[in-house]
Amino acid sequence: MVEEKEIIEKLLNGELKIRQIDDLVGDTEKSVDIRRKFIENVSNTKLEHLSNYSLSMEEAIKRNIENPIGTIQIPLGIAGPLEVHGEYADGDYYVPLATTEGALVASINRGFSVIKAAGGTSARIIEDKMTRAPVIKTESVSEAIKIKEWIKLHFNDLKEAAESTTRHGKLIKIDPIIIVGKYVYPRFVYTTGDSMGMNMVTIATDTALKILVEKTSAHVIALSGNVCVDKKAAAINLIEGRGKSIVAEISIPREIVEKKLKTTPEAIVEVNVSKNFIGSAIAGSMSFNAQYANMIGAIFLATGQDEAHIVEGSLGITFAEVVNGDLYFAVTLPDVPLATFGGGTKIETARECLEIMGVYGAGKVGKFAEIVAGTVLAGELSLIGALAAGHLARAHKDLGRG
Amino acid sequence: MVEEKEIIEKLLNGELKIRQIDDLVGDTEKSVDIRRKFIENVSNTKLEHLSNYSLSMEEAIKRNIENPIGTIQIPLGIAGPLEVHGEYADGDYYVPLATTEGALVASINRGFSVIKAAGGTSARIIEDKMTRAPVIKTESVSEAIKIKEWIKLHFNDLKEAAESTTRHGKLIKIDPIIIVGKYVYPRFVYTTGDSMGMNMVTIATDTALKILVEKTSAHVIALSGNVCVDKKAAAINLIEGRGKSIVAEISIPREIVEKKLKTTPEAIVEVNVSKNFIGSAIAGSMSFNAQYANMIGAIFLATGQDEAHIVEGSLGITFAEVVNGDLYFAVTLPDVPLATFGGGTKIETARECLEIMGVYGAGKVGKFAEIVAGTVLAGELSLIGALAAGHLARAHKDLGRG
Amino acid sequence: MVEEKEIIEKLLNGELKIRQIDDLVGDTEKSVDIRRKFIENVSNTKLEHLSNYSLSMEEAIKRNIENPIGTIQIPLGIAGPLEVHGEYADGDYYVPLATTEGALVASINRGFSVIKAAGGTSARIIEDKMTRAPVIKTESVSEAIKIKEWIKLHFNDLKEAAESTTRHGKLIKIDPIIIVGKYVYPRFVYTTGDSMGMNMVTIATDTALKILVEKTSAHVIALSGNVCVDKKAAAINLIEGRGKSIVAEISIPREIVEKKLKTTPEAIVEVNVSKNFIGSAIAGSMSFNAQYANMIGAIFLATGQDEAHIVEGSLGITFAEVVNGDLYFAVTLPDVPLATFGGGTKIETARECLEIMGVYGAGKVGKFAEIVAGTVLAGELSLIGALAAGHLARAHKDLGRG
Amino acid sequence: MVEEKEIIEKLLNGELKIRQIDDLVGDTEKSVDIRRKFIENVSNTKLEHLSNYSLSMEEAIKRNIENPIGTIQIPLGIAGPLEVHGEYADGDYYVPLATTEGALVASINRGFSVIKAAGGTSARIIEDKMTRAPVIKTESVSEAIKIKEWIKLHFNDLKEAAESTTRHGKLIKIDPIIIVGKYVYPRFVYTTGDSMGMNMVTIATDTALKILVEKTSAHVIALSGNVCVDKKAAAINLIEGRGKSIVAEISIPREIVEKKLKTTPEAIVEVNVSKNFIGSAIAGSMSFNAQYANMIGAIFLATGQDEAHIVEGSLGITFAEVVNGDLYFAVTLPDVPLATFGGGTKIETARECLEIMGVYGAGKVGKFAEIVAGTVLAGELSLIGALAAGHLARAHKDLGRG
Repeated sequence: MVEEKEIIEKLLNGELKIRQIDDLVGDTEKSVDIRRKFIENVSNTKLEHLSNYSLSMEEAIKRNIENPIGTIQIPLGIAGPLEVHGEYADGDYYVPLATTEGALVASINRGFSVIKAAGGTSARIIEDKMTRAPVIKTESVSEAIKIKEWIKLHFNDLKEAAESTTRHGKLIKIDPIIIVGKYVYPRFVYTTGDSMGMNMVTIATDTALKILVEKTSAHVIALSGNVCVDKKAAAINLIEGRGKSIVAEISIPREIVEKKLKTTPEAIVEVNVSKNFIGSAIAGSMSFNAQYANMIGAIFLATGQDEAHIVEGSLGITFAEVVNGDLYFAVTLPDVPLATFGGGTKIETARECLEIMGVYGAGKVGKFAEIVAGTVLAGELSLIGALAAGHLARAHKDLGRG
Repeated sequence: MVEEKEIIEKLLNGELKIRQIDDLVGDTEKSVDIRRKFIENVSNTKLEHLSNYSLSMEEAIKRNIENPIGTIQIPLGIAGPLEVHGEYADGDYYVPLATTEGALVASINRGFSVIKAAGGTSARIIEDKMTRAPVIKTESVSEAIKIKEWIKLHFNDLKEAAESTTRHGKLIKIDPIIIVGKYVYPRFVYTTGDSMGMNMVTIATDTALKILVEKTSAHVIALSGNVCVDKKAAAINLIEGRGKSIVAEISIPREIVEKKLKTTPEAIVEVNVSKNFIGSAIAGSMSFNAQYANMIGAIFLATGQDEAHIVEGSLGITFAEVVNGDLYFAVTLPDVPLATFGGGTKIETARECLEIMGVYGAGKVGKFAEIVAGTVLAGELSLIGALAAGHLARAHKDLGRG
Repeated sequence: MVEEKEIIEKLLNGELKIRQIDDLVGDTEKSVDIRRKFIENVSNTKLEHLSNYSLSMEEAIKRNIENPIGTIQIPLGIAGPLEVHGEYADGDYYVPLATTEGALVASINRGFSVIKAAGGTSARIIEDKMTRAPVIKTESVSEAIKIKEWIKLHFNDLKEAAESTTRHGKLIKIDPIIIVGKYVYPRFVYTTGDSMGMNMVTIATDTALKILVEKTSAHVIALSGNVCVDKKAAAINLIEGRGKSIVAEISIPREIVEKKLKTTPEAIVEVNVSKNFIGSAIAGSMSFNAQYANMIGAIFLATGQDEAHIVEGSLGITFAEVVNGDLYFAVTLPDVPLATFGGGTKIETARECLEIMGVYGAGKVGKFAEIVAGTVLAGELSLIGALAAGHLARAHKDLGRG
Repeated sequence: MVEEKEIIEKLLNGELKIRQIDDLVGDTEKSVDIRRKFIENVSNTKLEHLSNYSLSMEEAIKRNIENPIGTIQIPLGIAGPLEVHGEYADGDYYVPLATTEGALVASINRGFSVIKAAGGTSARIIEDKMTRAPVIKTESVSEAIKIKEWIKLHFNDLKEAAESTTRHGKLIKIDPIIIVGKYVYPRFVYTTGDSMGMNMVTIATDTALKILVEKTSAHVIALSGNVCVDKKAAAINLIEGRGKSIVAEISIPREIVEKKLKTTPEAIVEVNVSKNFIGSAIAGSMSFNAQYANMIGAIFLATGQDEAHIVEGSLGITFAEVVNGDLYFAVTLPDVPLATFGGGTKIETARECLEIMGVYGAGKVGKFAEIVAGTVLAGELSLIGALAAGHLARAHKDLGRG
């Protein structure tokens, strides 16, 4: 093919840039191939696996990627059934998990088995919101106070403007409005339905700010002032919640703990306190848990969630308690951005993964959130159980030694 | 096929569990197919994209996944060239980025273009280590102090034991050794060569602890006591470093800032201070940056790094300063676990992505780390530049309004 | 005196406890003397300075102290005049400072002198509240959600109950209401007038909780669940504010910076960024400032504030910027519990110190808060100026060396 | 007295500044009187209590205060005996506590009584150090790395220089040495004997830095770069320790818990977990305790410690556990700057308070630290016990209700 060769020549000698190929070629698949061949050429590689994809690059290039050269593959395991009893999810679910960390799927599956034996986990959404907090500059602290008051007084105007940009987003409050010196950080808090909603709230907030800027002396420095806080571990997200704030809990009879986890409720409580509470506290960590990041990561990748949101989703607190000899175990995740609609969820494999759980598309995010909570509980329980079992085994051996 | 049908029957009526298929079937690919068909059956779906994979499931099942039903696909874009001058990387590199967040690849590419115009970014590894910190229980605080002293005194013995389990891992120190009440948290610090090293240091630490347990009254509660801290945002990782601690910096002439980013060095400094410093501070965030998580996420997925490590990798501080009218810009990432060898890097598409940068296999992780640092700088600069440009545009409009 | 001797005998041989003296003796001053003599006896000391006090122990024992043996003395310096222009304070003030740290009063005084030369500092209260957040246990997460909803729905009832216990306290909101597993942490937020208000809000919250407990299945584990958060460094206090949230700011002409502080606006900005922002960030600190604790400490002791509140009062962010060649400098303290009425403010020397500033008693806390903000700005400016001057001096010397 | 009148006139009309009185008058006491009278005049007050002091202002003005006008008085209560068994303290101690918070002394005393009944508390110092961490600027990150290497290589030279300035201070390590962009933050770690040591380490570090600056291109921006971290809540101080890191622990038989604290070991554990662990975690607090700040505050004021160090001293973790039906209870305070020598400890009343415990002067700080730990344990146990008792009482009432 002459054209292809020519383009690659031009790319090699710098006459063309890689982002210009699409316009030149017209056909997406073809431009993907040319771009990949150029990369093979320039890096002296053979990229045969990157080219093996079935998703529609035509669609992906519209909303998910620029300069595509193919796709990566990540192994997908399945765990289940997870028995969860939530407000939206109620029954048994198979959960797709994309990971390259050996033993993770098996560990979660073991957790599912314990949950099943104990009659299922209960899951709930405790808060649901998405946020954007711009940084606004004023002339002085007294001006900053006036801007803050103005925002409070004109909430309805700002709400109207914000909501004019979206069908699903609702501005529910602007709170807190933090002042530092002459800067103001108002946190716009929305519900966003089944979309994760970052883009939605960005556009809505931008539109609302136009009124603020028009009517006051406020000057917007940046649409995000890091009080949102997107894709960062932050106390404000723990305190106020962001994305879906979810809890899963379970009561597990002692005999099941002993039989299935080879340990005791007491040993699990001790691991939880010494590791997840004291260890995290002394290390200055915001994650008072053992491995939320692993479960959140595997389920996020499988279902087309934003990988950078694993940072937020992995925050949270594990609680374990002995009640009447049995184990009460709960996971709380205050900050899990989730979608069953839009963004990466439309990627073909993501869609299939969501469909496995029956949570693809509008009206399904509540159910999905509860399955996520149950999955996190399973992985957490399984790992802490294993640590406790090892500890018990060592304890017995230690005693035998004497 | 009779056998397949039978197995699916048994799975459906509960006689078999999904993890038992592999042993029964023998052939990996086939068991993947059966398992997927069962899931299709039970969830009433058609999983045609998950089945479209080219990687060797035979290999993946040995170290990366259990209960596989196929792979997911994530679009892969390419950005470049990134001009980086490091200790290991020196020249132009094309960087593969796996993401579904539209505009991210373009944004990073824009940053690369600014870097190129300014003569390249300088990158360095400032620390290199991997850690494991068990939680150990003792009888009392005085016993805890004795255990701590014992560990200090017998460092060489512990080192010998730890290193007996690995060719590449070296135990360089056990520090800090934190005492809380009667619990002791000794942080084992290793170098791990080109592997990310978590498994390596876990095994090594476990072996070292056997000596401790044998010779003292110490009791190991858990091999990880959350002072490591793996896959969690934690101050100890900022302070002490974990994985590769990396910095990239650049000096950009004012005219390039103005021409390519449509803003000024001063505006970039103001966005950085009000957003990344003040905004993050007041929000209680550990990430004093705009979007490290996005670049780290996209490059981690492309290259087979552990997705849960995005939590750690996204920590860090962006610094911007006007020097003689030009822009000095630096990103510091104290906690980036990285591998060019082992784990997920062997997945076929990950391997190809690493090969594009010339960093697959042993002896390449230094070079890879410097390319990662340069990529993070590019994305950060691009986003802050865009925010600053918007801010400048608004400022001009505001002025025009009067 | 026979009686005294007898009592001391009984104390020595264990027949009496030190807290029983007061009832036995009846006269406060006398019981103070006996108790102190017993301590002299048992510790073989001569406590002549502790006995030198002029405050009314009769009054102190009613509300401030148990088992008194006298008073301690702390040197009190005076700095001034501080020129402050606030909403409540407007003019020149002399500020009493109790400290044993040499150079602190002089340093603050130097700051006052710079402020005076620049025409005064502007100060404002940006938030005003006091909080109590109990921890409540429920049966399950779904029960926890119901309790949260109940609290929201019955806010008016809870408000009425809370406010029935106090003339000055007003319950303005219960927010956030945080759920972790089956625990609920509702944050009761009050205004408390000129009292610091901790006791007030504790009693009010306790009374409100009685309704909650009566009408629901909620069980109060502790009246404070550490989400208040009293006397602790905590992100929630930075984000939501506690006590008085105050800001002071000033614009200082370049020539005054150069003449009085022997440095430049640029050098001050660099110290602030590298020390207060980057240094604090990497150290995992919540105080993005140089020495708020010193000024808050000295003014708190002088005026009878609770010494343990220095922990909260010292949190905050210092901001410095060059504007048209001049220095803009601001301090923001989100969490300063303050009183001009009640508690330790009635101690005779505290009262005199408050009177020096004209802020003793009801209706004065706003003015006092603004003077505190101005004092913190002065000390912060003075120290950062000194660091910057040293840095400049070294820079000149370094240059001279070449 | 003509002279006095004249000076006050000149102060009033601005011819003199308050800091100039001392030189003019010569006699300290007299200048204190004149200065106070001027303040009375200008503020229209009568400062009769501030003038009632017995300490030597002659001495105080040399090292503790400028512009003195007298002293403040704070009520001093006594609690005891505290039975502590440490490495340095062994026996019964009466503890002086300066506070205006009613019920605090009584609460601590109640804790002492429980400790006594249980046979005493065990206390230990686990770390002992004082730190200073300057911020150093370099030309680039590669320069920063070289400076870091230089510091490591020349530790002995720096140590010699540092130690040349002090008899008691020893530089034990420079670690960590943190790099952020082109800035370097080396943490100089010393032992300082019985002094708190801040001034000592400041002077020593300053002297060491002269060598660094002379031999390298390093430029010192500020002698403290907020990585020390002095008088701020900071994770680095929790992790690495600062001042004295101390622990106190106790095992309390169930019947004593029930009889003296009117609660159970289980109820105490539940309050500790739900309040001190979960509450603090979700609030983003660094203090995983109930009220360390109160005990640290009262003992710091009594004994002439730096009041601003209450911020650091109040950090720490409370641990409670049921062991064989009894209560194990421990407090860990990683960051308590303490002195029995120098600074404010020479103030007459501080000296007397230290003497009461037999810990005034050189060689006593270990003993003092253990008494402090025991006192913190007492107050913490007493408050948590009271909360648990209230909780139990409510629980019983709740049950009765049904």
